[in-house]
Amino acid sequence: MNKAVRWLYHSRILRWFVFGTFSIVFGLASAVAIVLAHDSLTYKHRDLQKISPSELALHPEPGGPKNLPVVSDYVEGDEDNFTRECKGKERLVIVGGGWAAVSLLSKLEPGRYNVTLVSPNNFYLFTPLLPSATVGTVEPRSLIEPIRKVLSRHRGHYVQGKAIDVELGSSIDPSEGGTQRLLEVQLVSGEEKSGMPGRGHPEAQPAAGSSAPPRDEVKDRRVYIPYDKLVVAVGSVTSTHGVPGLEHAFHLKDIEDARGIRSRILDNLEIASLPTTTPEEREKLLSFVISGGGPTGVETASEIYDMLNEDVLDYYPKLLRQQAKVWLIQSRSHILNTYSEKISKYAEEKFARDEVHIVTNARVKEVKQDSVSYTVKDEDGKVTEHEVPSGMTLWSTGIAMSPFTRSMTQMLPNQSHLKALLVDSHLRVQGTPKGTVYALGDASTLDTRLIDSLYDFVDECDTDHDGRISYNEFQKLASSVRKRFPLASKHFEKLRDLFETYDKDHDEHLSTNEIADMFLETQRKMTALPATAQVASQEGAYLAKKLNKLAKLKEKGQLLPSPSKAEDPVPKVDLDEMHYTPFSYRNLGSLAYIGNAAAFDLPLPEPIGSFAGGLVAMYMWRSFYLSEQVSTRTRMLLLSDYIRRGIWGRDISRI
Amino acid sequence: MNKAVRWLYHSRILRWFVFGTFSIVFGLASAVAIVLAHDSLTYKHRDLQKISPSELALHPEPGGPKNLPVVSDYVEGDEDNFTRECKGKERLVIVGGGWAAVSLLSKLEPGRYNVTLVSPNNFYLFTPLLPSATVGTVEPRSLIEPIRKVLSRHRGHYVQGKAIDVELGSSIDPSEGGTQRLLEVQLVSGEEKSGMPGRGHPEAQPAAGSSAPPRDEVKDRRVYIPYDKLVVAVGSVTSTHGVPGLEHAFHLKDIEDARGIRSRILDNLEIASLPTTTPEEREKLLSFVISGGGPTGVETASEIYDMLNEDVLDYYPKLLRQQAKVWLIQSRSHILNTYSEKISKYAEEKFARDEVHIVTNARVKEVKQDSVSYTVKDEDGKVTEHEVPSGMTLWSTGIAMSPFTRSMTQMLPNQSHLKALLVDSHLRVQGTPKGTVYALGDASTLDTRLIDSLYDFVDECDTDHDGRISYNEFQKLASSVRKRFPLASKHFEKLRDLFETYDKDHDEHLSTNEIADMFLETQRKMTALPATAQVASQEGAYLAKKLNKLAKLKEKGQLLPSPSKAEDPVPKVDLDEMHYTPFSYRNLGSLAYIGNAAAFDLPLPEPIGSFAGGLVAMYMWRSFYLSEQVSTRTRMLLLSDYIRRGIWGRDISRI
Repeated sequence: MNKAVRWLYHSRILRWFVFGTFSIVFGLASAVAIVLAHDSLTYKHRDLQKISPSELALHPEPGGPKNLPVVSDYVEGDEDNFTRECKGKERLVIVGGGWAAVSLLSKLEPGRYNVTLVSPNNFYLFTPLLPSATVGTVEPRSLIEPIRKVLSRHRGHYVQGKAIDVELGSSIDPSEGGTQRLLEVQLVSGEEKSGMPGRGHPEAQPAAGSSAPPRDEVKDRRVYIPYDKLVVAVGSVTSTHGVPGLEHAFHLKDIEDARGIRSRILDNLEIASLPTTTPEEREKLLSFVISGGGPTGVETASEIYDMLNEDVLDYYPKLLRQQAKVWLIQSRSHILNTYSEKISKYAEEKFARDEVHIVTNARVKEVKQDSVSYTVKDEDGKVTEHEVPSGMTLWSTGIAMSPFTRSMTQMLPNQSHLKALLVDSHLRVQGTPKGTVYALGDASTLDTRLIDSLYDFVDECDTDHDGRISYNEFQKLASSVRKRFPLASKHFEKLRDLFETYDKDHDEHLSTNEIADMFLETQRKMTALPATAQVASQEGAYLAKKLNKLAKLKEKGQLLPSPSKAEDPVPKVDLDEMHYTPFSYRNLGSLAYIGNAAAFDLPLPEPIGSFAGGLVAMYMWRSFYLSEQVSTRTRMLLLSDYIRRGIWGRDISRI
Repeated sequence: MNKAVRWLYHSRILRWFVFGTFSIVFGLASAVAIVLAHDSLTYKHRDLQKISPSELALHPEPGGPKNLPVVSDYVEGDEDNFTRECKGKERLVIVGGGWAAVSLLSKLEPGRYNVTLVSPNNFYLFTPLLPSATVGTVEPRSLIEPIRKVLSRHRGHYVQGKAIDVELGSSIDPSEGGTQRLLEVQLVSGEEKSGMPGRGHPEAQPAAGSSAPPRDEVKDRRVYIPYDKLVVAVGSVTSTHGVPGLEHAFHLKDIEDARGIRSRILDNLEIASLPTTTPEEREKLLSFVISGGGPTGVETASEIYDMLNEDVLDYYPKLLRQQAKVWLIQSRSHILNTYSEKISKYAEEKFARDEVHIVTNARVKEVKQDSVSYTVKDEDGKVTEHEVPSGMTLWSTGIAMSPFTRSMTQMLPNQSHLKALLVDSHLRVQGTPKGTVYALGDASTLDTRLIDSLYDFVDECDTDHDGRISYNEFQKLASSVRKRFPLASKHFEKLRDLFETYDKDHDEHLSTNEIADMFLETQRKMTALPATAQVASQEGAYLAKKLNKLAKLKEKGQLLPSPSKAEDPVPKVDLDEMHYTPFSYRNLGSLAYIGNAAAFDLPLPEPIGSFAGGLVAMYMWRSFYLSEQVSTRTRMLLLSDYIRRGIWGRDISRI
């Protein structure tokens, strides 16, 4: 014994053990001391200087076609020198506070614009992790960042409201003649915002907690917000596909949706545990039906399954876990159909093992209060009808236009798309004065109507004016197409082959008809960018960099080419095209969480390109999203949510 | 230069610096590694054994006077051996899931009783920090712990419902003859519970998120839950004092209240920042009126002030901070009037410095949608009327009976108190069969009606049966009083003095009339225990220990005294009195948070006893509440909330 102690004492093991323990304790103690020291400095009594907002900020004057108050100044407009300086800059008005808007704001250089953001929510939501919030793997508050914090480096103005109309005026300043560019905004109170049309459930109750007394509403308050540059980034709503009964289904677009689903699931578990609940009712309460086999549907199904298997099994009657079922109804033949086949298959096999029921080739016919009916087409084309009981139905099948986007497409010429605003390669909304209105993210889609510009292209490239396009001219045309229709780029790469394919009469020239055929064929093959956070984010960053450059040039007086003669008016030029490249999307791959496993579809050669796996992949998936956070705050919150789940499981309190 | 480097290299400073840095990094890395390693073990596929609940659990048989289903078994009743074993034990039914209930559960030994807990909320709420949750200093989720987790060591049953009636039967088993003891419970779904009567706002909307589709309700489902021992721990509701217009005010009793207040404040800040809001509207929106100068009112006022001063100043227009006002309306002449005078004064001075407006000697006359009117009585007794605009009114003035407590007091004899159920010194509800119904916490109050037991006392102590009480007999009587009326204890200490005071005719004996005078006088001076978490917690712990002892004695067969002769029936004895001491409360002092400062009122001699101070006291206050948490989980959550506030401030997202 004594010898063993002596040996231990002299050996390195003990020394290292002591050293290790000491290090851990010292390390943690230091961290605590630093945090505490910092914390103690955050409580201070601050004296206020007296603020005197301008008269115009306190009482905006009415104007514009509808004679509404025109917001030309804000009460915070004279707070400090920086704000005062921004006041003189171009007015950049951003509608929406999602991925595109926040990406734009984070890349935009402070002080270049007088920024205003209009959104009914005063926070930015990290949407990709919304499925995790439906069962409490992460807390809803860990996914959001106040818009005011994002705006603060720009000393931007936030207006809680929703855009409803635009006046595409000719200038910002009515005194210069012409009409003013105005965004019409309906101001909302937080308790009204949930009643917005297009939220999916217009008949829904106010969002306020149950015990909140009713409040005065900010009803029918509309204002005009003048803009030099308007950015439409309002996102999308869930597509209904005309299916009846969707008022009985949840959507998953907003933080309230995630909270609602969590409440409903926990409540169902409680009701299923009540003494008088019959086996049939229990089956219904514990049947969770998800319509849509895309990433949102798959991830929500996974999260619900995880919760059933981890927390429900630990704390609820075990009978519940036994009776609980998760259904995933997909219209295509595979789930995750936008991913590689390998990943679809991995996910399907994983779900089969986990007893998540996948129904493919199925169309939901109707959603009822406590069931979902759908039809399935089998391999022989035979259609059969089915019905599953449902205690919670999630509807996550594609996107549709938000009310503001819809009203804009109706108002503008050259807009014919059904899902979003058509934008050109510079992200400018088609049909609006160039350089004034941009659209980003789900609210926008790149124009693919090559054929509409046929004559422009031919006129531009037919240098010998013979009405036909030679191969040399075609090379110029192709480069022009690639520039104006980035989505067509990959179809205009092997030019010689392309030229010969369409040169039907082999005269070494393409006639206008031959080019029209080529354009129509290409147009058919072009696929729009997916409605993902990644696209929105890249578009926001692109626009921010362009706006930075334009503002810098303007400050230096180099924005416009100097007129050749003193008398000449300034030439009409396309500033975006002159000073910046068109938007081009770089696919960085996609990820999906599949129940304690994750899948990656990366733009890399196989077999590295697409892979799926268990725990390690799941940790990679989490790390990626942690790194993507817009603030260190949410990063820490998410991390602590993950740690907490590991130690204590999910919180099953129904609040 | 070279020399300096060499010196540094050889000196201890560098070595310690390297060592220190290494320690911190190594310490943190080890912590991360341990957490990660543990986390990776928590994702496992678990196979289910088949569960077959008893027929009685699946289909409870109807019974009792109202022929409702009698819950004699639960679906989880046969899950494992421990649960099966508990099934044979006495049924302990606890109504309510607050401080008293959780304190009882945490001190109760597992396996001694078949425990069922009935509450509309499936979580326990740490009420003392509710004011901090109204502005997001801590998150609501950090204050709650799922009841199912607390119950899990007892393999207890949780029923989401609210008690509405009791059948005080003579036995648990109807087959033994007599009537069964039954608790009538109304089952609720989570979305219904907020509509409960007595929640203060019967007309309130359902608690569900705005986007939640409506659900089937668990309407009119009532069951009987049989009990051997019933514990009423339903807490209280806020007293209305008959003031009209309280539907316009918030209460602060539940987590939904805190969330509602937070939403309202953040929403008011947003509306106040909108361009068309007039200065008058802004003044109203930014006026926060709190009625009630007790700890809840004072702490909420402090938290709102903190937020205005820290977060609002950083992220909202500075004009808002300038116009914002906090009002505290108190009916007494000082705020925190249950604390020492020193603390009241400290708080009042602190608030005066912080521009929190205190109105004392004031009675609220009416609460309106956007104002509060009150009357003030000045020193000369002159009453003046005032009105303040209000964007958020909090009503926190004393407690009243919850509907269940009220219906019990109406049903029972010997119940005359207006605020709670009267209990004897063993916490048994007066008027119920001894040893079957207990009441704890805010729902109960110790009986002070000495006079009602006058003849009992005299009969018991008048050993020489002369109809008078000698000093010797009086000593016995005093000890008897102290035992049965613990609140009277301190009045029965100086016995000689007391005896002589009331022995008006100096005959060295007290007549029944003289004792009646003494009792009435004492009764008038006795003060009820305060309705605090501390009292509830001590009562719960007391009852748990008693129940443990009774169960152990029963298991050993030593509960009842053995009858002297074989034919004699078992004598009717008071088991509580026979085996356990009466409840006695130990005041451990009280705490209050006063805006980056805290006050302590401890049962220690002055000047240590009551003190108030700045940051250090605030950290002490926080440490105390951290230590008081019911789980490590909420402790960590709270700690991380505090750290987060220090680093990033409060979250101002209105969700």
